This record gives sequence, C-alpha cells and structure tokens, in this order.
Amino acid sequence: MGFFSKDIKTLDDLFVHTLRDIYYAEKQIEKALPKMIDKATDPALVAGFEKHLKETKGHIERVEQVFEMHGVKAKAVNCPAIDGILKEADEVAGDVEDKQVLDAALIASAQAVEHYEMTRYGTLVAWAKQLGRSDCASVLAKNLKEEEATDKKLTELGENNINMQAAE
Amino acid sequence: MGFFSKDIKTLDDLFVHTLRDIYYAEKQIEKALPKMIDKATDPALVAGFEKHLKETKGHIERVEQVFEMHGVKAKAVNCPAIDGILKEADEVAGDVEDKQVLDAALIASAQAVEHYEMTRYGTLVAWAKQLGRSDCASVLAKNLKEEEATDKKLTELGENNINMQAAE
Repeated sequence: MGFFSKDIKTLDDLFVHTLRDIYYAEKQIEKALPKMIDKATDPALVAGFEKHLKETKGHIERVEQVFEMHGVKAKAVNCPAIDGILKEADEVAGDVEDKQVLDAALIASAQAVEHYEMTRYGTLVAWAKQLGRSDCASVLAKNLKEEEATDKKLTELGENNINMQAAE
Repeated sequence: MGFFSKDIKTLDDLFVHTLRDIYYAEKQIEKALPKMIDKATDPALVAGFEKHLKETKGHIERVEQVFEMHGVKAKAVNCPAIDGILKEADEVAGDVEDKQVLDAALIASAQAVEHYEMTRYGTLVAWAKQLGRSDCASVLAKNLKEEEATDKKLTELGENNINMQAAE
C-alpha cells in the first residue's frame, strides 16, 4: 500500500486506506487492459477484455462514489501488490509467439488481477458493513459481483482456448 | 515471473514456468508466515496461521512432486506478484498499534495471498489436465482445495474479529 501504517489507528482508517489501494489498482488496470486487448487474438477474449475495460471505468466511478459517501477525499495510494501482478502479466505475455499460448497466458494473468480485486472488495464490503456503512457496502458489492463474473467468464474462455488448441 | 518469455513456446513451457512461479511464491509465503504469526494477537488467528505454515510446507513438497512427475527440474523463478503482495502485507501491518485493527489487517493480507495462490493453482490444474497430466492435476488440486479452505477460514476469523471489536 506504500504509506505510513502508524497513521492507521482504527478500522475506519484501515477501510479508507484499502479503498485508496483499490482505487489505485483499478486505475492501473484501466491502463493495462488496452495493452492486453492489443495482444489477445481470440475474438471472444478481445471482446471480454473490452467489456471489462468498460466495467473497470464503472468500478472507478463507484469507488469515487464511496469516497464521497464516506466523506473522504478520493485519493490513490501506491499498491505494490497490483504493480507486481501487472508487471508479471506484462513479462509473461512479452514475446510469446504462439497465439493460443499467448491467449492462455493473458487469461491466467487477467485471472490473477481479478482475484486481487475480489479479495480487496470482499474485505471492503465486510468492513463497510461493520462500520455501519451498509450503503457503501452495497456499492462495493456491485464491483465484487462484476469481478467474480469476469473471473468465471475467463475460466470458460481458458477452457475453450485450450480445447481449441488440443483439437488442432 | 521475471524471465524471458521468448522461451515460452508451448502450453507445456507455460505450465512449467507457472509451476516455478508458484514454487517461488510458496517459499516466500513460508518465510513470511512466521512474521505474521508474531504480529497476530487473536489466538484463533495465530493458530490458523500456524496451521497454514504447516500446510505451506506440504504445498512446497507437492509442487516438488509435480516437478518430478513431469520430469523437470524443481526450480523457482522470480514472481513479482507475490513479492508485491507480501511487501504490501508487511507495510500495512507495520506499526498498527490497535491489536484488533492489526488482526483485521493481517487477515486481509493473508486473504490476498490466498487469492493469488488460488488463481495460480486453478490455472495449473486446468493446464495439467489439458496436457494429459491428470496425475499432476490431482496433486495440484489438493493444494488448491487447502488454499480455498484457508481463505474461507480467514473470512470467518475476520467476521469474528470485527464482531468482537463492535461489541466492546
């Protein structure tokens, strides 16, 4: 998260900090997805990434909405976790020539991203409820639900991609 | 993953590379868990981390078994993703004074770790099956199942921790 944890004294501080962490992560994902779209070859995968890019922009807006509802400034803090996940995604996709192997690598990388988002939104929803902010929880739960649906879709795309490969 | 992706030409190469990535990740987690055990205060959380440390050692052995079954050298490759996740876990837990807030932060960090492992094992199981290595898939699926169980347990611990806090 890249910050001074001594500033975190209460569950509310931790909630706001983690909200800033996912805000940063979503913005980095928004930047990374166009590169993944460029690399992907399977039209269904390209369409899936394009849909997720649109959803990601919506997620950023929802996180901004939660900042406002909670009365704190919308601010991003560094998140070494998503930086590492995206760095790895970039490296593995780098020079893979075979198109189906590249698609398989892209799907796996995207699922690692989804899982990071799922765990953070899951935590944020739980903490928001505990802080008596079920209004914030329900907005964050919408993002969680969409990340879970994307992950499921990626699993299906991975299975189809691999099956196609086996059938060749 | 920290490597030259031009060396990845086939799904088998990608499978072996990702196996080396999770091998590195598990070893880093093995090093990180004792620090998390030291910081945790809730006895149930301490016990959960201790159990998971034991499981992690078993996961490393299973990954080594899969390397052997697949006829490749057990080798770790750098994994920027787990490095980032663990760096963030370390930073957020750094100087949080309130014990319950610290436990909440530790639980969230551990869940981020679990989700990374879940996504990688999920991918490895799918690829192993496709490569006709259902024997490797079933060994890897055991690790996946234990990571999922740990994540579920952490969710429960998080809810109890937070509820205790609210009751004070």
